[in-house]
Parts: sequence; C-alpha cells; structure tokens
Amino acid sequence: MSGPLEGLRVLDLSSVVVGPVCTGVLAEQGAEVIKLESPEGDLLRKLGGKGRSPGMAGKFLNFNRGKRSLCLDLKHPRAKAVLARVAARCDILVTNIRPEAQRRLGVDAATVSEALPRLIHCSIVGFRGDGPYAGKPAYDTVIQGVSGIAGCFEASTGEPRYVPMLVADHVCGLIAAQQIGFALYRREKTGRGESIEVPMFENMAAFVLQEHLGAMSFRPALGPPGDARVLSPEARPLRTRDGFIAVSANTDAQAHGFFRAIGRPELIADPRFATVAARTAHTKEYFALRATALLGRDSAEWLAILGAEDVPAMPYNTIESLLTDPHLRATGLVREEEHPSEGPTIAIGAPNILSGGMAPRLPPAQRLGQAGRDVLAEAGLSAAEIDELARDGALRQPEEQE
Amino acid sequence: MSGPLEGLRVLDLSSVVVGPVCTGVLAEQGAEVIKLESPEGDLLRKLGGKGRSPGMAGKFLNFNRGKRSLCLDLKHPRAKAVLARVAARCDILVTNIRPEAQRRLGVDAATVSEALPRLIHCSIVGFRGDGPYAGKPAYDTVIQGVSGIAGCFEASTGEPRYVPMLVADHVCGLIAAQQIGFALYRREKTGRGESIEVPMFENMAAFVLQEHLGAMSFRPALGPPGDARVLSPEARPLRTRDGFIAVSANTDAQAHGFFRAIGRPELIADPRFATVAARTAHTKEYFALRATALLGRDSAEWLAILGAEDVPAMPYNTIESLLTDPHLRATGLVREEEHPSEGPTIAIGAPNILSGGMAPRLPPAQRLGQAGRDVLAEAGLSAAEIDELARDGALRQPEEQE
Repeated sequence: MSGPLEGLRVLDLSSVVVGPVCTGVLAEQGAEVIKLESPEGDLLRKLGGKGRSPGMAGKFLNFNRGKRSLCLDLKHPRAKAVLARVAARCDILVTNIRPEAQRRLGVDAATVSEALPRLIHCSIVGFRGDGPYAGKPAYDTVIQGVSGIAGCFEASTGEPRYVPMLVADHVCGLIAAQQIGFALYRREKTGRGESIEVPMFENMAAFVLQEHLGAMSFRPALGPPGDARVLSPEARPLRTRDGFIAVSANTDAQAHGFFRAIGRPELIADPRFATVAARTAHTKEYFALRATALLGRDSAEWLAILGAEDVPAMPYNTIESLLTDPHLRATGLVREEEHPSEGPTIAIGAPNILSGGMAPRLPPAQRLGQAGRDVLAEAGLSAAEIDELARDGALRQPEEQE
Repeated sequence: MSGPLEGLRVLDLSSVVVGPVCTGVLAEQGAEVIKLESPEGDLLRKLGGKGRSPGMAGKFLNFNRGKRSLCLDLKHPRAKAVLARVAARCDILVTNIRPEAQRRLGVDAATVSEALPRLIHCSIVGFRGDGPYAGKPAYDTVIQGVSGIAGCFEASTGEPRYVPMLVADHVCGLIAAQQIGFALYRREKTGRGESIEVPMFENMAAFVLQEHLGAMSFRPALGPPGDARVLSPEARPLRTRDGFIAVSANTDAQAHGFFRAIGRPELIADPRFATVAARTAHTKEYFALRATALLGRDSAEWLAILGAEDVPAMPYNTIESLLTDPHLRATGLVREEEHPSEGPTIAIGAPNILSGGMAPRLPPAQRLGQAGRDVLAEAGLSAAEIDELARDGALRQPEEQE
C-alpha cells in the first residue's frame, strides 16, 4: 500500500506553521518532502516550546513528521546552484517566503517555472498581490485580526479575541495542500505545472463571511450579520457536577429528548422551545436554560441519559485528556513512538482513510540537516563535492551543530 | 481559462455546512456540482437566517454558490433509479449522511463502487469506524467539545468555549476537498476511483494536538501542554483610542520597533523584554504591557507609526467592516451581484489564484430543485419521463414549492 502522492517530490522552502502544515499533508499522502532550512533552522525548532535537545521542540516535531531536513547556507556563493539541482528533481515547491525575498533567492514562480515547466509552485502569502495590502507581512494574529476572526468574538462576547490556536496559519496550510492537489490533477491532463498563490487574508475573510455574513448578504441588508446560535455567548460545553460535556440539541427530536433527559418534559410544549423556529427566536433563553440544566449529575451519567434519548452528546476533552481518549488510542491517531534522537514521544497519526492505499507511517521529524548528504547524493553530487560543500560551510550537517 | 477540475461532475449528497464547504471548493475549481436535496431542502435554506424569500437564507446562499439543485423524494419508489442514472455520470460523490443511512439509500461506498469503479466516494463522518465512537452523530459543537478546541479556551482563559464559527465543519469540509484532489490525481495514474473517509473528530484532534501538545509530546512529559504565547488570555487585538488594531511583534526587531513606536525605547535593553527567549519567559508581562500601550492615539495613527518601524500591524475588522475593506473590494473577493431571484446581494469570490486557469465566476445559489429538469435530461431521461416523475412527486421543481 502507498499513498496517492507516492513518487512525487516536494521542495519545502517554508517554516513555522503555514507552510509546514501544507507539506506535512503532502508527506502524509506519500510525497517525499525535502525541507530546506537555513543554518539557524526553522524558527519553530526553538520557538516551539520545550524539547529534550536543542532545536527539537515538541511543536516542531508535530508539524514536521516525515520530512527530510537539508540545511544549506544560501548566503554561500555555491549554495544557490546546489539548491537548483535539488529543485530540478522536484514536482512541487512550497514557500511562505515573502515575494520580494523569493525573487532575491531566485525561487519565485516566474524564475523557477521558466527552468522547470512541470513544477507546481505554491506561494503562501498574507495578501493577494492585486490589492492595497499586497506585500504586507502576514502573521497568524495579524490575519486573525484583519480577517474578522477576532471580530466574531466581539460579535459573540463583546470582546475581540484570537482563537487560541494558529488557526489562520493552520487552515491556510491545509488549503495550500488542497490547491496543490488540484494542480497535480491538472498537470496529468496538460503536462504542465503552474503557480498557485494562496493569500491568507482572502482565505480567512471568505471563511468568516461564508459563516456570518447572513442577513447582510442582501443589499440593502435584511438585518445585522451573524448566525445568532453560533455567536451566542453561551455557545460552550455544558457544566455538569464533575466537569463538562458537549451537547448538540438542535432538531425538535433532539431538543425534546434533552427536555425529557433533564426531567423537564413540560418544556416540549412551551411555545418558546417547542420548534426550531421558536428556539432560534429564543436562543438566549434556550441556551441559558441548557447552561445550568446539567449541574445535578456527573458527566458520565449525563452521557448515558442523553444517549438513551438520542441527543448528540460527547465527553469534553482538554488538550491533556485527548492523549487518553479511548477512541483516539483505538484508532491509533495517538500512539507512543521511540524517536531515534529524542527518545519516547507521542506521535499523531493520519486522520483520513483512503481505500486506494495510504502511505506507511511517517518517520519522526529530523534533526537540522540530517538528510543533507543523502539528498545531495540523490541530486547527483559526488561524495567529494558534498564534502567540499560541507567544508566550505555551504552544507550544514547535524554533527557540526553541537 | 477554466479551472483545474473542469469537466468533472460531482454528486453532492450533503447538507448544512461540512459537505457543502467541500463541494463549494470543487465548484470553485471548475467542477459541475449537482446538489441533491430532499423535498424539505437543505436544512440551511431555513436555518441559515434571514432571506428575501423562503428557503433562500443568506448563509445558504454563501455556501452553495455554483451548484445545481436537484430535488428528488428518495422515499418515492422510482427516485432511487433516477439517482443511480445521475450518479453513473459523476466522477465524485460527497456525502455527510451517516453510514447506516447511506447503506439504506444504497449510496454507501461499497454499493456505489461496485457499479462505478471510477467514482471517488467521499464520506465525511464524525468518528472513524474503527474506534468506540464509531457511528455516533457529529455536529460542529460536539466535535469542538470532544476534539479539544473548547479545551484550548479553558487552557487560555479558564473557561471552555466554542470558536464562534462552525470551525470543525468548515475545516473538515476543506480537508475533504483536499483528499478528493489527491484521489483524483491517483485516478489519473490507476484508472480507478476509491473511497475516502474523512472523520471530523480525528481531523480536529490532530489539529489541536499539533498546535498544543508541546512539552507533552515527550514521554514522560517535559511540562504542561500548550504554546504559552498562543494560549495567553491577552492574545487579542490591541485597544487604541478609537478601536482596535492587530499587531504581531515577535522577533527582536519587531519588538524593539514596537518599544520605539510607543515611546519606550528603554524597554529594548530591559532584561525581561530584550530577546525572544526573555519575552517568551515573560509572556504575561509583555502581553500586559502591549495591552494598554496604544490607548493614547487612534488606530490610523498607530498603523502609520508601527508601519514606519516595520512592526506587522493591520486594521481590525468586524464582520460588517469586511464588506468595506479596501483590499477585499479591490481584489473582488467581496462584490455586489444581482441574484436572479433574490435581487441585489453580496457575492464572496474565490480566494486563491492558479496560473493554469481559474473557473469563471460561479453563478449564485439556486432555488430548491431549480436544475432538476436539466440534470435529468442530461442523464438521458426523456421529457415525457421527466414530466411523469414530476407528476408522481418523485421530482420536485421550484414552481411547486410556492
């Protein structure tokens, strides 16, 4: 069995989160990913929190599984030619380097495509090139602020706030991998590569607007924007005697089941709560009622009672408790793994299943420059050439860092 | 110019958000999407907030651009055979119907693939089939609760909460489209379709764990999980005299520029704030300092001052203000459009640019059953057959709803 992208090679000129998410998906689907790093290494190696050894932070490990690290000093006069030889063997180039810096390094779409017409060049940028924000730097929080994500919190709770995840980076990385898949399909038809621009602002603004433009989709607006149920300040897990559970009771059958479960069957006939339309009109009261309805019993009891009434309900997980979730352990999404240099770790598996074949389990993230020699040898450089590049400092290898 | 998926046909057996996001992406890339609806129509037609006419809620319009609506009553004895004739012409089938209901309708992967070996069948489910939660119903909030998204808020602010968007639905829809692209690529190589299972829980748990497993990625754990900067309760837009702006000042150059901009250059040498490592160790103090630093001037002034110091900063947008954002207007992501039945509306454009060609602007979302006659005629049914199906109630058309 092998993944759908088996046989494809990716040159990964990206760092931190948005690009590594993209190339992580490609690796998970069977592509060979060559991660180019500067002598300082991907910033996430250090910024990604604690690790057992320098440059091997937990967050870095989790975004870089299955990639081969090639460490070149692109300031060295010979490094660019070496990079070009590696690129010539690749099908896909992914970068989140800003456009003007791409041009300086000679890895922009125009330059690369001329030499390599079959290459798919994917550039993840903050803002599309044809508007006034073109070229501005993009960071996750800046994108969350300008794209309306923080604005959704203001609409919900009165206070702008960022999602406590790098959601713009992460989602745009997933989208970049998606767009690359479509370009790969087209390349099979046309024989030609192409360049893709994935602008984070436009993608996240579209995400927010699809969700919440609502009554403002019409001109003139039919009312204020926003899906009231989703924006309710009470949109949160319900508190029980010993914790929280997640409940969804939206259809009439579910809501009525919920009322029976909490011992308030009279609410089924209550004109405020009897129908979807009534509950939508009384979202505030309905959510307030739910917020305190489960305080009398423990979570496990409520899950059993709600399950018996066919009300969708699941345990609430913290970040920690995901590690012991019985379903994630059973499906292998979370498993223990020995990292060759970092010792015992937790590995996060591939979520999706393709009947046509999946890539084998990905090896863990590498140390800086770990695959450098092999990658250059495969690109046709002789052992003597590689030794010379290492001696000159153009190629960096793990031994030298310590 | 045409999109990469030009010439492909999608049978969309999905509703509400997760499936429609997926097929919306496929439409945006040039695929023809046939949206099958029951006589009640996609729930989002009614639940999607206000609209000018029944069944045409704003939220529905924004998730269903570019799709052709076919309305069949699958309880009618002849409808299933009609659906099979439509399916026989399709390349891709997308569904978020629960597995056992798929089997009842005969649209599950096993049944469909036997008849149509080139078809790509994508089933979006709550939970993978090989764990104890298999078959449980999935709703966005339930997934946000069980996958640790709400848990990230607890880790940040002490209070579990859902993202005020259907983020699990939306992200998993994007992932489903991504996986379909990879399967299409593989089909070009093998000539065979395949079935894909996209489990929402596994995908969102992996999303959370990659972000925040951190020091718990090691066994034994090196510390509590979570990226402290991302989880800071102060991770939000900064308040100015007249509103908010979004600022990212993470590198030393950016942080030092920020200190100069706010007239506190002495902080550059402050041991708590001088370096990335120092600021990470003093995240709380650094974020607290930033939270009140901009109260003395208006947002526009700060954007100019911070820009001059090369500190990434952008305007803060509410949902409403996205509609007048100068960049989104310039790039055409947001534009005005006349809907043939609903009058003047706002249209949300395609965010990404592919140099190999893009699909033409998508037509707006259709009324329930609007394309039924055409779709069936293209599937080879005669006008007399179609009339009979309409007379029998197996096929529903827009005229009959009002």
